[in-house]
Amino acid sequence: MERTYIKDVVTKIGEKVLLKGWINTIRDHGKITFLDLRDNTGIVQCVLLIPDGDLGLEYAIEIQGSIKKRPERMINKEMETGFVEIEVKKITTLAKSYELPFDMSKENLDLKLPTLLDYRSLTLRHPKIKAVFKVQNQILDSYREYMKSQGFSEFFAPTIVPVATEGGAEIFPIEYFKYKTFLAQSPQLYKQIMVGVFEKAFTVSRAYRAEPSVTTRHMTEYISLDAEFGFINSWQEIMSMTEGLIRKIFADVEKNFSGELKMFNSSIPKLSKKIPRIKLKEAQEIIFKETGRDNRKEPDLDPQDEKDICKHIFKKQGSELVFITHYPTKKRPFYTYPDPQNPEYTYSFDLLGRGLEWVTGGQRINNYEQLLLNIKKWGNNPDDFDIYLKAFKYGMPPEGGFALGLERMTMQILGLANIREASYFPRDMERVDFRLSKFDTVRKNDQKKNKKQKNPPEKSN
Amino acid sequence: MERTYIKDVVTKIGEKVLLKGWINTIRDHGKITFLDLRDNTGIVQCVLLIPDGDLGLEYAIEIQGSIKKRPERMINKEMETGFVEIEVKKITTLAKSYELPFDMSKENLDLKLPTLLDYRSLTLRHPKIKAVFKVQNQILDSYREYMKSQGFSEFFAPTIVPVATEGGAEIFPIEYFKYKTFLAQSPQLYKQIMVGVFEKAFTVSRAYRAEPSVTTRHMTEYISLDAEFGFINSWQEIMSMTEGLIRKIFADVEKNFSGELKMFNSSIPKLSKKIPRIKLKEAQEIIFKETGRDNRKEPDLDPQDEKDICKHIFKKQGSELVFITHYPTKKRPFYTYPDPQNPEYTYSFDLLGRGLEWVTGGQRINNYEQLLLNIKKWGNNPDDFDIYLKAFKYGMPPEGGFALGLERMTMQILGLANIREASYFPRDMERVDFRLSKFDTVRKNDQKKNKKQKNPPEKSN
Repeated sequence: MERTYIKDVVTKIGEKVLLKGWINTIRDHGKITFLDLRDNTGIVQCVLLIPDGDLGLEYAIEIQGSIKKRPERMINKEMETGFVEIEVKKITTLAKSYELPFDMSKENLDLKLPTLLDYRSLTLRHPKIKAVFKVQNQILDSYREYMKSQGFSEFFAPTIVPVATEGGAEIFPIEYFKYKTFLAQSPQLYKQIMVGVFEKAFTVSRAYRAEPSVTTRHMTEYISLDAEFGFINSWQEIMSMTEGLIRKIFADVEKNFSGELKMFNSSIPKLSKKIPRIKLKEAQEIIFKETGRDNRKEPDLDPQDEKDICKHIFKKQGSELVFITHYPTKKRPFYTYPDPQNPEYTYSFDLLGRGLEWVTGGQRINNYEQLLLNIKKWGNNPDDFDIYLKAFKYGMPPEGGFALGLERMTMQILGLANIREASYFPRDMERVDFRLSKFDTVRKNDQKKNKKQKNPPEKSN
Repeated sequence: MERTYIKDVVTKIGEKVLLKGWINTIRDHGKITFLDLRDNTGIVQCVLLIPDGDLGLEYAIEIQGSIKKRPERMINKEMETGFVEIEVKKITTLAKSYELPFDMSKENLDLKLPTLLDYRSLTLRHPKIKAVFKVQNQILDSYREYMKSQGFSEFFAPTIVPVATEGGAEIFPIEYFKYKTFLAQSPQLYKQIMVGVFEKAFTVSRAYRAEPSVTTRHMTEYISLDAEFGFINSWQEIMSMTEGLIRKIFADVEKNFSGELKMFNSSIPKLSKKIPRIKLKEAQEIIFKETGRDNRKEPDLDPQDEKDICKHIFKKQGSELVFITHYPTKKRPFYTYPDPQNPEYTYSFDLLGRGLEWVTGGQRINNYEQLLLNIKKWGNNPDDFDIYLKAFKYGMPPEGGFALGLERMTMQILGLANIREASYFPRDMERVDFRLSKFDTVRKNDQKKNKKQKNPPEKSN
């Protein structure tokens, strides 16, 4: 018999079916046992009259039975399958489970973060946690679809890079044979190179930051959605492209995942007809006027500034998102295009939403000599940028682009308290699957093991 | 005026247009100059009567002009736009180019690999090299589309892993704050965990191998297409799923990229009605009979064996691809499912094509106790596998999956001589953008630089 997925049981009332899944809850009423079966598509109540010796939560099972309509008074309107139940004929256990460390059947798991992550392979199964990643996958699909619709080609940026090209201490060194290489902080330089190839390029990439602190909005490994395009007439086009993408994502999430948004008591951010674009300086003036906090000489917004300006823009213009533009040249990377009218400021922007940065972007310097000069001025060695510089040496049109952190955006749309909740297996300075302080013993075991190890891993090439 | 892409000029004969792109070739005939303009969509000939002071190859330019039909005798049937040309009214240079290090206008670049890679940002612009990545992007899209059509959900596996869990020396250590972590050799353990979550999961992941040798078919960083699914009735389903994917990819590439296949003098591999499935032992017997080479006691096929068995299967059964099954338990990773009939062999397979491995896969052990035992037996510490083991401790149905190297498959479909040609920015033990032997000086510069460095990279979160 072919398997029926739980989402389809409502269309097969009266039929005999084969279901597979996990036991989500068991309610023993003496002669009758109710169990909720969960598969990837939903949950359904099953009724057991047969005595059963061994059933437990999270057992992976197969059920043969018939789909019955529930009596009126037994209908559960909270469940999509609440008006049917499965009359079980036969249960086969495919895999048993140990006793669960916490109650998985609650609507909210309500676990502390360390527990949530120590048991990640279990907690990821919870419907509300899975909902986070359903929304995330929609963002991802909408991104790919939108970029393609705008003529962008996908490419892959390498994540092993030869030198700490973008500078800063926040970079992880790799022991690379007898050399040292680094984990890429972003696909930035490679996406710019790809403008010379595809004109319009996008990538779904890993980015790595050796953040020396633990915050609720940073991880050491995250998914960066990066796009870059050439032959622009004005750098304003970059913000318009960003806005087009954001609107597409919002529309798709709202259309397909309204139920998930409700689970999190959240909604898609409100946007005005056009997302406001204001200069950093103007934002600082507004903050000073509204709050009295005088950060007008600062080269960037601090976390409180970001909250304040978002609040103000929403109040005045009805948009929960705002572009902040014209960051100072000295605080942006060497490749940022200076405003010709005022070279101390750049054609750069951040898109803030709900008090936090969502996207960063801008126009880049596309003139070879100017770029070479800036690389030196920023204290770098041009030899380290050989492959990058060659893209500009041989004709690079005016170009720019943007980058968006996938987990950050998921967190902000759903209103999650911590970015780790939007990552399958989050990494930070204290945790890589488990707490790294466990590591000293692990390392010793590991060295012993390496000597004994004879079996290579499964290789895909 | 809105930009016209070159692929569209054939539909706008007689119209005034604005084109943008790079100068691919210049032919100076005295009073008249012909130049071929290249954008991401094609190449078109432009005719210049206006005297021009400064034009060069790879200049990024804008052209205003009119699209004319060419006189009959001037038609170039080799070019898609060969029956039209652009009568140029105005040229604007957007970015100049230095003199090119080699002739980019030839149909084949014919460069040695080191030059091809030293100038990667330039050589990637060549139409024949771009064709490689057009085909690769089709493989990628077909993969995503197929897996989704089969009910798989996309997820992201982390690439920073806490311990050398899959063993072997071929792993890169990362200096991770005060600890040591590693670059993932594959998303294997995480995709298995995800079976407990999504039942069917796929990912486009980076995989890293510290291959201590330089071959034509290995790189240190590559794109791994991984899929894993649960509730299987038989491990044969895993090969069937693999075969379904391969057929989908072949059909899409053939349909959409026949021109690109021709450029490489290649064609989609021929398949029989069902891809043959033969046991390793049988393959070794065949090789012995056919060639006299006796590798019947070997636990794996060597490169010559792979060529021989592919040749034999194609001759006898008309398939350029073949599944080799039942590899010995002691040569496969700890999680491989042993054949209950003969536990010295496993429910594992490799898919070979045109003399090389394309895909590897199999059923996995889903019983917690058996897995725990095997981890110890293979010389590993179960503590290192805590998060992985928990996925099995709490009910994991029978499951399996496969992994496919994206660059390897691209190379094999197009008949490329070296896998590096199928990677945008290939990494190996000798090269990461540039030859690592340059590195000693670079490293010193780098240390100096880090002290001076004040400007953080562009951050997306």
